Amino acid sequence: MATSFNPTPRTLMGPGPSDVHPRILSALGRPTIGHLDPEFVAMMDEVKGLLQYAFQTKNELTIAVSAPGSAGMETCFVNLIEAGDNVIVCQNGVFGGRMKENVERLGATAIMVEDDWGKAVDVAKVEAALKATDNVKAVCFVHAETSTGAISDAKAICELAHQHGAVTIVDAVTSLGGSELRVDDWGIDAIYSGTQKCLSCVPGISPVSFNERAVEIIKNRKTKVQSWFLDLNLVMGYWGGEGKRAYHHTAPVNALYALHESLVMLEEEGLENAWKRHQDNHNALKAGIEAMGLEFIVDEASRLPQLNAVTIPEGVDEAAVRSTLLNQFNLEIGAGLGALAGKVWRIGLMGYSSRAENILLCLGALDAVLTDMGAKINSGAAISAAQAKMK
Amino acid sequence: MATSFNPTPRTLMGPGPSDVHPRILSALGRPTIGHLDPEFVAMMDEVKGLLQYAFQTKNELTIAVSAPGSAGMETCFVNLIEAGDNVIVCQNGVFGGRMKENVERLGATAIMVEDDWGKAVDVAKVEAALKATDNVKAVCFVHAETSTGAISDAKAICELAHQHGAVTIVDAVTSLGGSELRVDDWGIDAIYSGTQKCLSCVPGISPVSFNERAVEIIKNRKTKVQSWFLDLNLVMGYWGGEGKRAYHHTAPVNALYALHESLVMLEEEGLENAWKRHQDNHNALKAGIEAMGLEFIVDEASRLPQLNAVTIPEGVDEAAVRSTLLNQFNLEIGAGLGALAGKVWRIGLMGYSSRAENILLCLGALDAVLTDMGAKINSGAAISAAQAKMK
Repeated sequence: MATSFNPTPRTLMGPGPSDVHPRILSALGRPTIGHLDPEFVAMMDEVKGLLQYAFQTKNELTIAVSAPGSAGMETCFVNLIEAGDNVIVCQNGVFGGRMKENVERLGATAIMVEDDWGKAVDVAKVEAALKATDNVKAVCFVHAETSTGAISDAKAICELAHQHGAVTIVDAVTSLGGSELRVDDWGIDAIYSGTQKCLSCVPGISPVSFNERAVEIIKNRKTKVQSWFLDLNLVMGYWGGEGKRAYHHTAPVNALYALHESLVMLEEEGLENAWKRHQDNHNALKAGIEAMGLEFIVDEASRLPQLNAVTIPEGVDEAAVRSTLLNQFNLEIGAGLGALAGKVWRIGLMGYSSRAENILLCLGALDAVLTDMGAKINSGAAISAAQAKMK
Repeated sequence: MATSFNPTPRTLMGPGPSDVHPRILSALGRPTIGHLDPEFVAMMDEVKGLLQYAFQTKNELTIAVSAPGSAGMETCFVNLIEAGDNVIVCQNGVFGGRMKENVERLGATAIMVEDDWGKAVDVAKVEAALKATDNVKAVCFVHAETSTGAISDAKAICELAHQHGAVTIVDAVTSLGGSELRVDDWGIDAIYSGTQKCLSCVPGISPVSFNERAVEIIKNRKTKVQSWFLDLNLVMGYWGGEGKRAYHHTAPVNALYALHESLVMLEEEGLENAWKRHQDNHNALKAGIEAMGLEFIVDEASRLPQLNAVTIPEGVDEAAVRSTLLNQFNLEIGAGLGALAGKVWRIGLMGYSSRAENILLCLGALDAVLTDMGAKINSGAAISAAQAKMK
């Protein structure tokens, strides 16, 4: 007979999920009510408004897809792209590759703009690709690459795309709530994110937003959207104005309670304060990591504060370090992914995980475990270096 | 400024979500851990085993899709069906129509076998369609139609399909955990369900199971699965044996805690006891409903015990009744859907909602509100009729 599952509490400093604030867990566990209950419908409307704030947009079509970030990505692609379209896809990590998969499974053509893992998307290369290709329907890129920790210039890429008559599809899974992101000011046409990163909510739903231009494209498609579940023509009816709500699927009621609470907390803190907190805490972690003798693989200019890809000291079994951190200190940090597998650790400072005590725990635990393993680091230097930045 | 959302507790006796047991809400709100944490991975393995029990199957590919039942449906269709395939779709309610949408969006042909809403699928019609059509790839039907409350003979339809070389795709959203369902004995090849019905878990994830024959079809497809998110060739790697887990997407960690707890509770009760409880409680509700003078639209032989579609007394504003039940007694019952909109109420007795006190509340509240509105019912007769069946 199976028995109830009681997870050992962890401190989550990997690439996501991040630590979920007790207020959010508490909201998550509130009694389930019907997905058509007037109280729930009113809460969905609030979620919409709060997401507009988080995305800095007035887009009417700003909702949460009832599935993880990967499904948010797919929502953007299946609704905006049709077979035969030309789509420029920028790849500088894992998630650009996933965008390519999405484009190709739609029967469209992906024109790849590739940059090294750990670098920002090269805007000049995007311009060259736009000039070299006729009828580009969309330019797609990852604002904040979770696999490497690099941030790209979303505003510049959007301007270029628009000059060439293309719309933009932007991955903001790791940037939403953690780094400056201005959907309207920057002219982002379609964007998707996740809840389990800088919003510190549980994983499983995906905030998305589409501007008028994107909505026009969706309404004027030549073919039906290939996914029934993700067809925004149907989903729009479900998230539509009060009284017009049409049954589409059963919303993940409790997950939306949690998202609501996480967005309430974001509004309480203030979006710009949240961005600043992520940057300040990165600065403290960085001081400690560098004092220890480890390095960041992303240049400071394009480094995400909330996702820190850090080199592994020579001769160290990186997986053994992660296991020991987990088993001895209940601390999770992330492994490298794709081209960076085995080459970096990914230390997340996202949402509720981004706080002073976590920085000390992470630096102290890394110092202890690496020193134990005989790694070549400056033992004992990290904590005071970090503390100097935290005052 | 938005504030925390505190839903008014309701008693959920609509078509789902059903009442979520406090043990399950409590599991849901436990601290989030990483989706690659060894403890979480071990829990996912337990979920797999418990789902095999619930489905009565030994199928290795038995998992929970990280999205609602509609996405579970789409998972079955996009993986098994390819453009050009002939697919027999049985429709006797809303969800058969959704299957048709799925088939057509894949570029396949849907051969419809239609029955009146409220009737079971007519097995003779399925046989006729199989005889009349060459190269039928799959026969698809809804085991338990949530929109009408009719149950169909899954075993007989599967036998017929196999005689003609077709596989079966079965919707068990409302039957899993509530009505007899034997995936292996009945020869069901692919099946999907939901968590928010007779499992009494929160909405948002979808249990699915595929037998060897279905897996062979998936592995030998001529074309790529059109959805990256739902591609089982990738998802299989994620839910695969220990040590082989490949990152695909971030699992909805807390929702899976909740599903685990709901399945632990199902195992504790015993599957056959759960089926019996649903039937016994239906019998009590039925006695009360009929004593009041209302009728069931589904014949007893094909009536689902957990989803009761009940006629509305003449001249009564059915929406006003539902609003009053909700506002005065915090009781939710469901409206009719599609062809039955405005014609029936749907009273759910699913999972944790299926208990004696709920039957009394529902009958008492309906009696009170309908009597108040001057409806022609036998006031005061329902409770004792139900109680006579509950002893």
